[in-house]
Amino acid sequence: MEFKFDDRGLLTAVVQDATTNEVLMVAWMNAEAVRLTRQTGEVWFWSRSRNELWRKGATSGNIMRVHELRLDCNGDTLLLKVDPAGPACHTGERSCFFNVLT
Amino acid sequence: MEFKFDDRGLLTAVVQDATTNEVLMVAWMNAEAVRLTRQTGEVWFWSRSRNELWRKGATSGNIMRVHELRLDCNGDTLLLKVDPAGPACHTGERSCFFNVLT
Repeated sequence: MEFKFDDRGLLTAVVQDATTNEVLMVAWMNAEAVRLTRQTGEVWFWSRSRNELWRKGATSGNIMRVHELRLDCNGDTLLLKVDPAGPACHTGERSCFFNVLT
Repeated sequence: MEFKFDDRGLLTAVVQDATTNEVLMVAWMNAEAVRLTRQTGEVWFWSRSRNELWRKGATSGNIMRVHELRLDCNGDTLLLKVDPAGPACHTGERSCFFNVLT
C-alpha cells in the first residue's frame, strides 16, 4: 500500500484517542512528518500556516504517542491512534471538535 | 462558529460510526454538500475526482444517517457521527482504514 501525497505533497491525518476512540484533531503530514512519526513513535505534522515541520506538543508538552497507524483505501489519508499526554486542542479542549452544530 | 472553506471551496469531512466510534472514511464537502447534509439528514459529499455532488450510498444503497455534526476549532473540518446502512468503503470493508501500517 502506497502513500498518495496530494499536489502540495501532503496527506490528511486524522488523530483518534486509542483508548476512548474520540476523534481529537485533523492536520497534515508530508513525507518527512510521516517518517519522523514512524521513527520516533510520536506525532509530527506539517504546518501549512507556518510552512514547517511541527512536533505535536513541542511547545505545550502535550505530545502524542502513536499506538497504531492506518492508511485508507486510496492512500491519501492516515488514521493515527494515539495516547495523548494532554488536550489536543490549542484552546485547551480535549478535542478540536467541541462545536456541535444543530 | 463559521465554516472556513479552503481555496477550492471545500471542508475536510471525517465520518465516524455513531455507535462504535470507528472512523469510517474521510471525504470533502462544499457549501452545497453541507447544506444538503443538514437539510436531508443524510451524508452528501463533493467528489473531487468526478467534480460533482455525491450522495453517499446513492449507488450502493449504503447511505449514512447523520447523528451529530461537529466543526473543529478553526472551522475547516467537519466530524460527522453517522449511522451507516452498510460498509463505508467501496472495497466492501466496513471502514476505509483497513490497512494497518507497521
